[in-house]
Amino acid sequence: MKIPEVLLIQVTHAPGMLSKVLGAVAEVGLVIDDLSMISRTQNKTIWELTIELNKESLDDLISKINALPHAEVLGMSDRVFDLHRGGKIDNKSRLEISSLQVLRDIYTPGVARVCLAIQANPALALQYTGIANTVAIVTNGTAILGLGNIGPVAGMPVMEGKAALFNYLAGLSGVPILLESKDPDEIVKVVKAIAPTFGAIQLEDIAAPECFEVEQRLQAELNIPVLHDDQHGTAVVALAAILAASRQVGKNIADATIGQIGLGAAGLGITRLLLKYGVKAVYGTDLNLAAITHLETMGGHGTSLPELMAKADIVIATTGVKGLIKPEWVRKGQMIFALSNPEPEIEPALALELGAAFAADGKNVNNVQAFPGLFRGALNAGATKFTDEMLVAAAESIAAHTKEHQLVPNPLDKEIHRDIAEAVYEAARISGAVPNHGKHLEFGL
Amino acid sequence: MKIPEVLLIQVTHAPGMLSKVLGAVAEVGLVIDDLSMISRTQNKTIWELTIELNKESLDDLISKINALPHAEVLGMSDRVFDLHRGGKIDNKSRLEISSLQVLRDIYTPGVARVCLAIQANPALALQYTGIANTVAIVTNGTAILGLGNIGPVAGMPVMEGKAALFNYLAGLSGVPILLESKDPDEIVKVVKAIAPTFGAIQLEDIAAPECFEVEQRLQAELNIPVLHDDQHGTAVVALAAILAASRQVGKNIADATIGQIGLGAAGLGITRLLLKYGVKAVYGTDLNLAAITHLETMGGHGTSLPELMAKADIVIATTGVKGLIKPEWVRKGQMIFALSNPEPEIEPALALELGAAFAADGKNVNNVQAFPGLFRGALNAGATKFTDEMLVAAAESIAAHTKEHQLVPNPLDKEIHRDIAEAVYEAARISGAVPNHGKHLEFGL
Repeated sequence: MKIPEVLLIQVTHAPGMLSKVLGAVAEVGLVIDDLSMISRTQNKTIWELTIELNKESLDDLISKINALPHAEVLGMSDRVFDLHRGGKIDNKSRLEISSLQVLRDIYTPGVARVCLAIQANPALALQYTGIANTVAIVTNGTAILGLGNIGPVAGMPVMEGKAALFNYLAGLSGVPILLESKDPDEIVKVVKAIAPTFGAIQLEDIAAPECFEVEQRLQAELNIPVLHDDQHGTAVVALAAILAASRQVGKNIADATIGQIGLGAAGLGITRLLLKYGVKAVYGTDLNLAAITHLETMGGHGTSLPELMAKADIVIATTGVKGLIKPEWVRKGQMIFALSNPEPEIEPALALELGAAFAADGKNVNNVQAFPGLFRGALNAGATKFTDEMLVAAAESIAAHTKEHQLVPNPLDKEIHRDIAEAVYEAARISGAVPNHGKHLEFGL
Repeated sequence: MKIPEVLLIQVTHAPGMLSKVLGAVAEVGLVIDDLSMISRTQNKTIWELTIELNKESLDDLISKINALPHAEVLGMSDRVFDLHRGGKIDNKSRLEISSLQVLRDIYTPGVARVCLAIQANPALALQYTGIANTVAIVTNGTAILGLGNIGPVAGMPVMEGKAALFNYLAGLSGVPILLESKDPDEIVKVVKAIAPTFGAIQLEDIAAPECFEVEQRLQAELNIPVLHDDQHGTAVVALAAILAASRQVGKNIADATIGQIGLGAAGLGITRLLLKYGVKAVYGTDLNLAAITHLETMGGHGTSLPELMAKADIVIATTGVKGLIKPEWVRKGQMIFALSNPEPEIEPALALELGAAFAADGKNVNNVQAFPGLFRGALNAGATKFTDEMLVAAAESIAAHTKEHQLVPNPLDKEIHRDIAEAVYEAARISGAVPNHGKHLEFGL
């Protein structure tokens, strides 16, 4: 697969020199992710060039750049690794423990008063501990990104990334929990055992079909919200993108025929949410027959890939298979969301050329758009579960914030995450997710 | 038990007025923990008075103060609760996620490079995740402080306090883990299941005798350091205090006869460490015969309480029973550490009056002196366990930093914690705790 590499390139500081380097990138058929100036001497500049590519393209690119008379690849930058050094999160004290009296207040002997108060009235734990602001991010490493079963420790950088984003975008405290087990029974037991520590559980990058059982059982047996992000977080962002794009082309998705290619965790999450949203005709296809049965129990219809392409007004693909959608299948006026990263089932430019009314790949359809607001809203509301109404509310809020000609809003805009949280909060209260109004504490962002 | 209360008292701002208030405190037989000025108008001052007392003394004190012509108790301050509001820790992003490029570096797609690097070489997780800097703080709430079995959620403020201190004093990331189970089997299973997340495990406030089995099995089955703080953290600080006090009275503890009253988690931890330190004659007493057998398997001797008092040069008591040591038992020249909090087995002033060469209570003997440096040192060394040499090194370092006429150093001095960590680090390397030199990363404080 393609992953981003960062090249350090020294270029003579004269007109046209950098342009030649970028020309070499174009010759290899690559697009530029990012370019920034690192340092400059009298007549040389060092540039940091970020590009997604595979090993072969990299070798090709380096030799092409080195063949230029005024440029030289100095090496690869460790920028990504540098940012990860020592990990990306830190459980910090919220207080300056600057005097012995503060120590005696927050630890022995003063802390005993708070313990006794909580023992007498357990709801006070919501106020005087961080439990209600803390989300476990649980993985067993069996489906890390598109990398597959690389194990929980190799998946830790993703979990820490989620925790960093929870904190940065929504003021939540995310705690990665790495499990070795692949057995749903064992995973459910362990997560239940540690659940008193947390206000909510995010399941992350756990492979299908185990992920379905784990999520359902945990949500049934625990009194706090549980969400498998790869199913529902992704579904929320996909629904948001479909809503935004449909609005832009003047289509009402409830009346559309929608086809989902790929019925793994993401695909089943998307079809489930579309059906809950009120879409009547939802078709799906997958090589795995059990997944098609799963779709049909939810009210969707199984079909073949060519038939799906022939029927659907809106096509969504989450297969991880580059170029799966053949050009001859694309129909005039179709909307196509080829969401696999880093390489889509069909290039959007090609689909548009073939007559699609709209086409997008998955580069910007990222669950970071959804999960901070989903959990912030659920925790603020004191919800004990995520209802479909909460997921739909998040999708609608994201779509409402999406500007013309865009698929999703800026993922780093904290105001938008706050609005999403508010929409989820309201939906929680009217959809039966909050059994005890008033028993919770509201945290600010 | 006595817990600290904070009174807000309005006093006329004139000579002698505050003194009368403090006189009222003295009349009730209480000592003042802290006193600070909160606000002042033309002729009135509001003082915040912190005192450890029980309910009866509180009512008595309030009526005595209100009987004064120029003073009035306005109410109780929520200072301790205010400091706990929202919890005391927060899993923070270590990075400003200030641009889309940073987002793409620390989350998808850039994070995939780091995941793949760790998959190829798992030791890189020590560098590119926070695992090696993270300590699980595990409790089931069965022995929280002196409060007993109040459950894990009511114990959370203590765990958060530990995490805050880990972070503040040693730059570590402490993660509370709350378990409901009281079954050692179940606790061991769950902690093992989540262990890949952490660099070390601190067991905390788990009742005896389950705590012994849980610690031994976890340390045997895991490849990271495991420490039950109530046994060994407390033992380290007790040994440090005994070393410092013995130095001050010119006694060599290796040749002394030492008696331990109370053989719970703390008492057995202390006797164990004294024996490892080389003390030849260690006596112990407890109402629980199994605990005495436990002591004897370690090389100590069981005895009765009066006999212990008759034999021991140095007496340590950790029973939680106020006034357990009868005045007639105290012998001239004895050293007495009556460590139960908040009320000692004998008041130090009384013991000294009766001829003791040295006497102290447990007010300043707090495991916060030990655990930050123990874990910092073990993690920096890449230790897979805590050896006795590491515990002794910590105790000697603490004692070396203790000033004349003091029992322990200032617990908030980060330089001292750093020195303790270095001593533990060195001891780890020479005592077989580090199977793979050079495979670890050193974190700074």
